Amino acid sequence: MTRSQFFNLCNDVAAEIKMAVSGLIGKPEAGVTLKIGADGTPTEKIDQVAENAALSVLEADGRSMLFVSEELGEKRIGGKPEFTFVLDPVDGTFNAVNNIPFFCVPIAIGNSNLSDIRYGFVRNLVNGDIYSAEKGKGAFRNDTKIHVSGISELSKLSVLSYSHRPHAVPINNHNVRRVRVFGCAALELCYVASGIFDAFFDMRGMLRVTDIAASKVIVEEAGGKITDEKGMPLKTPLDVRERVNIIASNGIAHDKLLELV
Amino acid sequence: MTRSQFFNLCNDVAAEIKMAVSGLIGKPEAGVTLKIGADGTPTEKIDQVAENAALSVLEADGRSMLFVSEELGEKRIGGKPEFTFVLDPVDGTFNAVNNIPFFCVPIAIGNSNLSDIRYGFVRNLVNGDIYSAEKGKGAFRNDTKIHVSGISELSKLSVLSYSHRPHAVPINNHNVRRVRVFGCAALELCYVASGIFDAFFDMRGMLRVTDIAASKVIVEEAGGKITDEKGMPLKTPLDVRERVNIIASNGIAHDKLLELV
Repeated sequence: MTRSQFFNLCNDVAAEIKMAVSGLIGKPEAGVTLKIGADGTPTEKIDQVAENAALSVLEADGRSMLFVSEELGEKRIGGKPEFTFVLDPVDGTFNAVNNIPFFCVPIAIGNSNLSDIRYGFVRNLVNGDIYSAEKGKGAFRNDTKIHVSGISELSKLSVLSYSHRPHAVPINNHNVRRVRVFGCAALELCYVASGIFDAFFDMRGMLRVTDIAASKVIVEEAGGKITDEKGMPLKTPLDVRERVNIIASNGIAHDKLLELV
Repeated sequence: MTRSQFFNLCNDVAAEIKMAVSGLIGKPEAGVTLKIGADGTPTEKIDQVAENAALSVLEADGRSMLFVSEELGEKRIGGKPEFTFVLDPVDGTFNAVNNIPFFCVPIAIGNSNLSDIRYGFVRNLVNGDIYSAEKGKGAFRNDTKIHVSGISELSKLSVLSYSHRPHAVPINNHNVRRVRVFGCAALELCYVASGIFDAFFDMRGMLRVTDIAASKVIVEEAGGKITDEKGMPLKTPLDVRERVNIIASNGIAHDKLLELV
């Protein structure tokens, strides 16, 4: 793989976050609510510590950018932005606070909306794995190329599925092989990109662009497909107040999953 | 804590299993199906390797026991059994095969059915944590006493929930705070015992006594409650062909959860 010009910046941000939060994993104080973040949800201590760590790295970088992040909303760094740096400081906050080993830092480099993401980077904060993809150049876990699965039969699918209606969950243990919910969307989407799971489905109206921007390009570069619940391309503005519903899949099962919804 | 007379035996079995499977975690060969086990589900290589490791420790122990395990069904070791040793060699096989960090060894010491379990032991195979409980003596994570949560309001509950009907999932993101599904029932029940989650719910008709016997006494000794879907005590025979549906909770939310089902 040739490394993107953004790899080092993303890697430095993720490393700084990992160091900053390491003393907070599994600690009740990590989950203390400090305020309501720009995304409209509570900012817990671990989120704020992580975002501050990221900001310090970005401000030292020298490039001009628009920094979009869950707690602060958006902030211009330097002059006219060369790109938009989209961050969820910690995806899987509940897991991190409770020492459940699924949380990560997802970072996307884009411009104005989900359709123009050109680089995605997700670091698993537990085992250090890095998933990354530059548009047109394939997707990788560390230095190994990854690819989505080849299963199309519904009854054989392993699906990450978040329910969305009170009394009807279209994807469940009776129409697919296996349903899991790990509470860390960015990393779960990387599992789809890696072929461990066949699809990811979230129609709660709760996902933010910061949760999925990075993994979107990773899934697509791994040969998968990611759309809204009607099968349309995602074009949501890179704004933390926006909410999106998505279906991501290995591509070949996509239409069958859309029919269930 | 005073250690149960069964602690060392359980710990030795879990340690032997950990060693035996360590080279298989995240390897496709670990998931190769060898046969259909006594429980009626496929025996994957990692399950068989783990069960063999356990058997070698039990045969060397010297005590007479009935060994109940998912792959072999049951086996008498020595003369007239002093107790029944109930094992799931690896709970969370799919996770282990795919290097998803959530799998464990659950062991229960009992007699004939789920109502007479006197000791439960669950070792998290990823981080080494040991959850244990002897009837009447409290529940522990390693040497620290654990207790269930104190939340009773449905909309504030964090629930581990496996759906059971095609078009109706009674516990979902719209009536509780948070739904997760990690695919490792024994360990998920220990999260209820620890107060990280408030309830666990599985009505797929798929759980075996080997999945839940150990955690049952851990949940109860941590102050929680575990029943069938009608709120009745669990009295299922210690036989791997049996299937059970359960609701486990912190106790104070139990009746409200039963009403949803």
